[in-house]
Amino acid sequence: MSLTMSRVSVPLFVRGLKVLSTLLQKGEEFAAEKGMVPEVLLGARLAEDMLPLSAQVQRASDASKLCVHRLAGGDAPKFPDDETSFQQLQERIAKTIAYLESVAAADVDAGQDKTIQLNWGSFAPTFSGQEYLLSFGLPNFYFHIVTAYDILRNQGVKIGKLDYLGAFDKA
Amino acid sequence: MSLTMSRVSVPLFVRGLKVLSTLLQKGEEFAAEKGMVPEVLLGARLAEDMLPLSAQVQRASDASKLCVHRLAGGDAPKFPDDETSFQQLQERIAKTIAYLESVAAADVDAGQDKTIQLNWGSFAPTFSGQEYLLSFGLPNFYFHIVTAYDILRNQGVKIGKLDYLGAFDKA
Repeated sequence: MSLTMSRVSVPLFVRGLKVLSTLLQKGEEFAAEKGMVPEVLLGARLAEDMLPLSAQVQRASDASKLCVHRLAGGDAPKFPDDETSFQQLQERIAKTIAYLESVAAADVDAGQDKTIQLNWGSFAPTFSGQEYLLSFGLPNFYFHIVTAYDILRNQGVKIGKLDYLGAFDKA
Repeated sequence: MSLTMSRVSVPLFVRGLKVLSTLLQKGEEFAAEKGMVPEVLLGARLAEDMLPLSAQVQRASDASKLCVHRLAGGDAPKFPDDETSFQQLQERIAKTIAYLESVAAADVDAGQDKTIQLNWGSFAPTFSGQEYLLSFGLPNFYFHIVTAYDILRNQGVKIGKLDYLGAFDKA
């Protein structure tokens, strides 16, 4: 099977979000075992001016949702970033996966040559859809998955590289 | 331009390694400004049983080199993981980029349907070349780039998300 825009986006995001769900589950179990207030773990961060664990989950959700939405067009759900518990973050992940899996592959594929302009103040690059996915969408998504992993490791949660790699699951 | 195995691998790795080079440069400047011994920053880690910054750079190098080598076949350079300074790590990155750019796109493309077996003890999945790139090669590579970023941030280096995103550079 040849590579297509839909092949290089949706399954990678879905797989990463499932990994994130498992990492969060292990974090929740760790907090319970240690008698740690869940909000403390969800509020943990690697630097004072970095986002905490809960926000890394929200950003991973939005990074994947917005990437596919910008490529495919159509409607996408809005998430108000109001999750405060492991349960709510798991629901956010599940809703994100449901959205990603609802988008027609042909619509994502059609985004390949679209012009996509980001506008983050001083960061306002223009990409083709293909450049956007490869230069921005994927690296941005993995940033938040890996940083969530790194926060959990930094807090002592017993997870390892194979939890991140998703062991035998294939995208 | 359609997506191909070479398009979805080499330019993403090269771009990520250039980002890593810039992050390391900023780390080196930070250490110099703070009067910090460079080895202390290169030895920093997020958890006792995680790899330090220098090893994250070595693993990012190998993750990209091995991915392309497994897909394309042929010869690849061997790096003995003996770097102990910022300068040596920058040279490692440069040599990795030179290798990646030396591989013929057609050889990487030909790896799409190859059977690739990993063997890490209990983790011994079999992938097609395409599954391997998308399920393992890319997530594994970004793991080390992002963790290097996270270690630098955790140590107080003044970098931000745009340094990771590589601002306007396109893969």
